[in-house]
Amino acid sequence: MIEDFVKKAARLLGHDRIHVDKSDIWPFGRDASGSGHNLPGCVVFPDTTDQVAALVRLASQYDLPYVTRGSGTCLSGGPVPAANGLVISTARMDRVLELDFDNACAWIEPGVINLDLSDSVDAEGWFYAPDPSSQQSCTIGGNVSENSGGPHCLSYGVTSQHILGLEVVFPDGSVHLIGGKSESQPGIDLRGFIVGSEGTIGIVTRILVRLTRKPEQIQTLLLGFPSVRDGAQTVSDIIAAGILPAAMEMMDQGITRAVEEFVHCGYPVDAGAVLLIEIDGIAGTLDGTAGRILKIARDNRASHEKIAVNADDQALLWKGRKNAFGAVARIKPHYYLHDCVIPRTKLADVLDEIAAISAQHDITIVNVFHAGDGNLHPLILFDRNQPGEQEKVEQAGEEIIEVCVAAGGTLSGEHGIGLEKMRYMPLVFTRKTLHTMQRIKCVFNPDQRLNPGKVLPVRGGCAEFRQKLS
Amino acid sequence: MIEDFVKKAARLLGHDRIHVDKSDIWPFGRDASGSGHNLPGCVVFPDTTDQVAALVRLASQYDLPYVTRGSGTCLSGGPVPAANGLVISTARMDRVLELDFDNACAWIEPGVINLDLSDSVDAEGWFYAPDPSSQQSCTIGGNVSENSGGPHCLSYGVTSQHILGLEVVFPDGSVHLIGGKSESQPGIDLRGFIVGSEGTIGIVTRILVRLTRKPEQIQTLLLGFPSVRDGAQTVSDIIAAGILPAAMEMMDQGITRAVEEFVHCGYPVDAGAVLLIEIDGIAGTLDGTAGRILKIARDNRASHEKIAVNADDQALLWKGRKNAFGAVARIKPHYYLHDCVIPRTKLADVLDEIAAISAQHDITIVNVFHAGDGNLHPLILFDRNQPGEQEKVEQAGEEIIEVCVAAGGTLSGEHGIGLEKMRYMPLVFTRKTLHTMQRIKCVFNPDQRLNPGKVLPVRGGCAEFRQKLS
Repeated sequence: MIEDFVKKAARLLGHDRIHVDKSDIWPFGRDASGSGHNLPGCVVFPDTTDQVAALVRLASQYDLPYVTRGSGTCLSGGPVPAANGLVISTARMDRVLELDFDNACAWIEPGVINLDLSDSVDAEGWFYAPDPSSQQSCTIGGNVSENSGGPHCLSYGVTSQHILGLEVVFPDGSVHLIGGKSESQPGIDLRGFIVGSEGTIGIVTRILVRLTRKPEQIQTLLLGFPSVRDGAQTVSDIIAAGILPAAMEMMDQGITRAVEEFVHCGYPVDAGAVLLIEIDGIAGTLDGTAGRILKIARDNRASHEKIAVNADDQALLWKGRKNAFGAVARIKPHYYLHDCVIPRTKLADVLDEIAAISAQHDITIVNVFHAGDGNLHPLILFDRNQPGEQEKVEQAGEEIIEVCVAAGGTLSGEHGIGLEKMRYMPLVFTRKTLHTMQRIKCVFNPDQRLNPGKVLPVRGGCAEFRQKLS
Repeated sequence: MIEDFVKKAARLLGHDRIHVDKSDIWPFGRDASGSGHNLPGCVVFPDTTDQVAALVRLASQYDLPYVTRGSGTCLSGGPVPAANGLVISTARMDRVLELDFDNACAWIEPGVINLDLSDSVDAEGWFYAPDPSSQQSCTIGGNVSENSGGPHCLSYGVTSQHILGLEVVFPDGSVHLIGGKSESQPGIDLRGFIVGSEGTIGIVTRILVRLTRKPEQIQTLLLGFPSVRDGAQTVSDIIAAGILPAAMEMMDQGITRAVEEFVHCGYPVDAGAVLLIEIDGIAGTLDGTAGRILKIARDNRASHEKIAVNADDQALLWKGRKNAFGAVARIKPHYYLHDCVIPRTKLADVLDEIAAISAQHDITIVNVFHAGDGNLHPLILFDRNQPGEQEKVEQAGEEIIEVCVAAGGTLSGEHGIGLEKMRYMPLVFTRKTLHTMQRIKCVFNPDQRLNPGKVLPVRGGCAEFRQKLS
């Protein structure tokens, strides 16, 4: 059956855009989370919206499950295909179609790499604001799927706030243009709804992104504190003072030491916690804000202070944060990364509880996270080849999630639910609400061929489901 | 049948919460737009979520259409009931349930008046940012329905960006808690989806709103220009310079003169256009920004400048803008208000075209609008009692909408579609996309008893609809 599909797809795309050789397509069976691997039956590389629509209709005809894939940097299993299913790669749909600086936006294809877009408009004084850690390699199509965040989303907002319009192919093969250059859109809000739907509603084929003016001036502050609690209190106090920095990242001592040994960026290894704070704005307006942040930090026993005002010094301070995940490889060969969000006021308490979980299971957990949003990223470090370690990690991970939910938090800030956190969804949604979500998904995806078995932990086909519930 | 409903509802709520006397309930048949009037059969005033859920089940049992109503300030016919249907008023659900300053949010009931919420947290240094012109009387529940904007939404964002969570009763009587104090929420985004759905998806019974710190300092600039084109260019140039004021409102000469005669707030009546710009932020950081705005204005031939730095002077400048709709009553007894949004770069061209429509139909049109967002509010002034005037107004209104859509704009920035603009929806959405929206609405509202016949210009019941399309 897949052979017939491949023959027809080859007529659509040409043979060079279709891969079925197992060694070629093996890497398309997983994502960066390692939370699942299924060998797909076929990987295709369409060029145009029409080709995507034709592929979707063809997949339907041959009853083939399919999934869209950008760079595969997802951290929750979103692009893991069904076994023997189809992977539709957006890698060749990577054109910037229109730059409209007057209206501060650009039409792009989903395969455009996040940082490439910013680089392409840098000389004109613009950038694309959402900056996930993987921005050198992740696609904006993938960012739309996961509603990705990043350090600078504290003041600039996550992906959904930067998507003005979308062209989407729904599983029935129809093509819809949603949103546009006017920010307000009447009717049922399909735009906000597709952003963050983790590729389960439709395939995004064009994206109208907001472009943001580069700030005239940036100041980057590195602050060391005796304890995580002092750093967390500083974060709360800065926000309470009405200051909204562009970024406010926290690292505990474990990660600070690993990073400093790895990249030598001048982080204080004797500090219990480090805050990396960035403020930006119009030239000449930042010194007052920086001064107030420093005062708040000193009131919370800050032990170290550094302010970087030129680009090289700033890049060095950020180099540490950006290489945090690489640095932990020097401690243990594997890590398991969580992505809980908690109310910002609970930061210190929840980090204490995570430390207790770490001690109880005798396992290393280090923390580097978007403190301003309360978006934790506890990294559980381990060696998969040591007997029993994997189980300890899973147990600790589950306990961390329970602690975050009990603190009024939720499962994911930016990495998505995908395969990995699906089983935890009943912790934060009632059965009835999950069923409501499923019924919406069924409006678009009635045969569940598009990215099946993700996000919503409900069983049964859409017809059965509708019957059961209405 | 309605009598039986009333008897059972009285058992739920008590007799004093149910009104059926025609003269009492007549005002509940319309909203502020005057775009329709139907005498309801019954108006009820529940107190609690449980009562709302019970009413919804009861309405279903007696096959009674129903609509939720806040203050009825809607400008698109959203709260107009079905003839002999039920109106569920949220007027008694007006409590602030929890203030959580540490997490910058509050749980409130939907009947809380917009400005009352800001007033209630003012002393602690907070406010609720979205500020529709009707903020002294509109409810936040109504704001959620319409995804309301306001002058300060330019930098603070519209209602959807200030709603963290919702408790909603769906038409099957089930109660759902959506969102929470953590900003990111996994799964299908029901929150963004209910905000702006114009009361056609569910009844919101509790709202978790974001609270915003009052800025330390505010500066309000009033700028006069020889022409609308100069003012529009100033707006574009300010945004292009990377400055995002808190508000940027424009008034043309017609409205400026009407306002000045009415409230004597010092607006320059000889200017072709007036810009009211407000910037806010941390104390001591605003002078540089104000200076740059003035320079841009002067480069665009600004003829008048005023800067208000204290609260009284600022209130006087805003008094004019806020009384604009009242002021036009001095010119003609009636007005018809549009709410198109266009790309900001098209402001001057579209305003020229609106002036041409005004001349062609020999009818007065004045303009006061959120220039920063490209959200026009042309006011067509007329006397309903003059033969032929109503027809001219409708024709001119239709032409204005066509001009805005042709410029890449859309039908509504903040007033909603409701009854009034439903017939224009095919101008901005394909039939297929409208049908997709309808199918989503049918997931929640399968019997179309909740606020029937609004927003989506599609005919037929949900069962028929599903059959027709799938």
